[in-house]
Amino acid sequence: RVNGTRLMETLHFTCEYGKAYPWGAHETETGMARLALNDDDKRVRHWLIEQAEALGCKVTVDQMGNMFVIRPGKDNTIPPVMMGSHLDTQPTGGRYDGILGVIAGLEVLRTFHDHDYQTEGPVGLVNWTNEEGARFPMVTVSSAVWAGEIPLETAWNCKEVTPTAGQEPQTLKQELERIGFLGEVPASYTAQPMAAHFEIHIEQGPILEDGGLKVGVVTGAQAYNWYEIEVKGRDSHAGTTPLSARRDALLAAAKMIVESNKAAKEFSGLVTTGIIRAEPGSVNTMAHTVRFTLDARHPSDEQLAKMVSRCREVFEKVAKEDSERGVEVKWTTLTENVAVQFDKDCIAAIEESADEVCARFEEAVGGRKLWTHLTSGAGHDSCNASKRCPSAMIFAVTREGMSHTPDEYCSPRDCIISADVLLGAVVRYDKA
Amino acid sequence: RVNGTRLMETLHFTCEYGKAYPWGAHETETGMARLALNDDDKRVRHWLIEQAEALGCKVTVDQMGNMFVIRPGKDNTIPPVMMGSHLDTQPTGGRYDGILGVIAGLEVLRTFHDHDYQTEGPVGLVNWTNEEGARFPMVTVSSAVWAGEIPLETAWNCKEVTPTAGQEPQTLKQELERIGFLGEVPASYTAQPMAAHFEIHIEQGPILEDGGLKVGVVTGAQAYNWYEIEVKGRDSHAGTTPLSARRDALLAAAKMIVESNKAAKEFSGLVTTGIIRAEPGSVNTMAHTVRFTLDARHPSDEQLAKMVSRCREVFEKVAKEDSERGVEVKWTTLTENVAVQFDKDCIAAIEESADEVCARFEEAVGGRKLWTHLTSGAGHDSCNASKRCPSAMIFAVTREGMSHTPDEYCSPRDCIISADVLLGAVVRYDKA
Ligand SMILES: NC(=O)NCCC(=O)O
Ligand SMILES: NC(=O)NCCC(=O)O
Repeated sequence: RVNGTRLMETLHFTCEYGKAYPWGAHETETGMARLALNDDDKRVRHWLIEQAEALGCKVTVDQMGNMFVIRPGKDNTIPPVMMGSHLDTQPTGGRYDGILGVIAGLEVLRTFHDHDYQTEGPVGLVNWTNEEGARFPMVTVSSAVWAGEIPLETAWNCKEVTPTAGQEPQTLKQELERIGFLGEVPASYTAQPMAAHFEIHIEQGPILEDGGLKVGVVTGAQAYNWYEIEVKGRDSHAGTTPLSARRDALLAAAKMIVESNKAAKEFSGLVTTGIIRAEPGSVNTMAHTVRFTLDARHPSDEQLAKMVSRCREVFEKVAKEDSERGVEVKWTTLTENVAVQFDKDCIAAIEESADEVCARFEEAVGGRKLWTHLTSGAGHDSCNASKRCPSAMIFAVTREGMSHTPDEYCSPRDCIISADVLLGAVVRYDKA
Repeated sequence: RVNGTRLMETLHFTCEYGKAYPWGAHETETGMARLALNDDDKRVRHWLIEQAEALGCKVTVDQMGNMFVIRPGKDNTIPPVMMGSHLDTQPTGGRYDGILGVIAGLEVLRTFHDHDYQTEGPVGLVNWTNEEGARFPMVTVSSAVWAGEIPLETAWNCKEVTPTAGQEPQTLKQELERIGFLGEVPASYTAQPMAAHFEIHIEQGPILEDGGLKVGVVTGAQAYNWYEIEVKGRDSHAGTTPLSARRDALLAAAKMIVESNKAAKEFSGLVTTGIIRAEPGSVNTMAHTVRFTLDARHPSDEQLAKMVSRCREVFEKVAKEDSERGVEVKWTTLTENVAVQFDKDCIAAIEESADEVCARFEEAVGGRKLWTHLTSGAGHDSCNASKRCPSAMIFAVTREGMSHTPDEYCSPRDCIISADVLLGAVVRYDKA
């Protein structure tokens, strides 16, 4: 078993780097704003290196700033079994999304260390850079580069979406350099091979809580694509331009957002706009340019493609209508992620471990099984990892299914249960 | 007659302060970005003081930074007949909106000076601060303070909408102080009384050009109100939050913008959204807060009120619908301006002058009358002035009716015609 007290203390200690948005009376009841590669991310990365070295682990930083912490095993000629997640957060994020996965991985290594436990092969921990895609709008970009899904240069050139006041938008590479985490080792599954990738993550949905369950054994993830839509119209006077003479980029964008929501309902998928910007931004002048994002998701690759096609169709229609006659619409793809199936051996290792850990609690609920299989609604670094090594995930209970918000919450008990499941899964997979 | 060459040279000379967005090959074929009280506004204000003093005029700056240039007449115990407009522009503005009115007023004073023409009473020129409301979102705010329509403190505390990168939003008062134009004289019609207020402005609409006309004699202006709408929802994950569990502030705002356009059509008015902001601004996180503006206009005060009520109704409905169930909507009024009727004596002076000036050109078009009465679609400082002194306006031809855009254009001939009409109107009104 892991040391639960240490796990929680460590998690909250690291959340001092970047804490924001208090929502409760206790000092740990705050959210986080630790955007990838900002100063707080730099501080928590340095802290991680210290902790890893104190355990006698070796730390390698690759060209994407991914941090690989490796604890040697009996046979170090085989690749390590890795536990991984991310330390970056949303701009108004919480303390569990990503962070729990990394800190639980560290806790597993500390538990091995406490007990002088010798694994068969090496075992390790990876902190993937810019998982959220919140600062640099390419989600799980660094595991994607590692998996060979995205060229290094494309990722390096990705520009931040919300530049610091008074600064030009920085690229991911510039920020890696600035904080000193631009490593020399290639970001690649060939340079840093893994025997397997296990990840704890909060569910970010309501199924575990609603079902009175403790653990989700994640068998796959839905497909999702991100786009930026640029609508170009004409700036003109709000008081003197008849509706019929307008090419109102913002009205057109608003209609498109409404239509995209209808498409989501039609295909039983999800479409969300989280970012919108209108230029020049004056009360009595129509916008000449509006840019907004679309986050489109569906469990089926085929249905996702159809839902996005429907959006393209209706956006073109809006562009020709009424007071938006003649606006121009341009789509840019930011990321495309097919639906993923995780590895059956990794899943089996997690199932066995979940059986054992949950057994402790099942008596109290009349023997009811406390874990279930789940499909992830969110994308995760494990989805990329799964393309190059056996992978699977463990979901922890999320209060009210809320994440990407400061009061995202997973109880200490649920955090510890997930870490115990991770420990058991890694021990089993390593032995096998 | 005015000196037409000097008028145009002066206008383009002053546009060196703040020129932006070239749209043609000639060096004067650019737009303007001279936002109120920025450094370019400061420069052009200093230039205006120099020019005024060179004509033996007295310059007074009031607490709103309004600049009153007064040329003495025979009897200086009576208030001056003023010509006024504004030197600030939209962020993507043109060279004529406001600027033509001020430079033509200066040209009239220069013409009097050239001919040593003694007016009965004093005659002058006023440059009203922040007419556009583009930087500080209260339109024609400084003539409104002068007219006693808005308290000084309210205007002073108005914060800029698009702060300089790296700075806190500044208040109007802070910026008046910064550029050295916070005068000590009260901004009030009692401290700076006017016998009348005449204003040239580009039409900003298509009627003169479409009708092959030269001059608009403006008899009034339509009513218009500005609002900021705040929609508060809940930030949550775009991939794991079912549509049914969302309180998506941005989707709700988009629906409201679409509905406001329907209300405009229903009431044959205008409703426009020029500014929208969504927080926190992340592709895979719903916005918790969206703020957008509404610019609502109608020739009838009563119909405007009804159209805005319809918007309030439908926005409340949107707030309770579907995936926006439970968003909160808050309205803030930024400005309210009733429909205005201008003064019949001022209108008569302009009509007589327009008759005379247009006569020069009417022969060439078979005696067709080249001026017409118009109602303004836009608000102007003259609307506020008209509450405290007889006022009226002259409209100049606007290419394709386009303004608040860099390629806004009024031909030299049309600029000069309007200045000649202004000269004749002021001479007539002063005599009467
Ligand atoms: N788990 C998570 O929030 N990852 C970000 C990628 C996504 O938006 O699904
Ligand atoms: N004329 C002009 O553009 N003034 C600004 C006020 C308005 O939006 O009507």
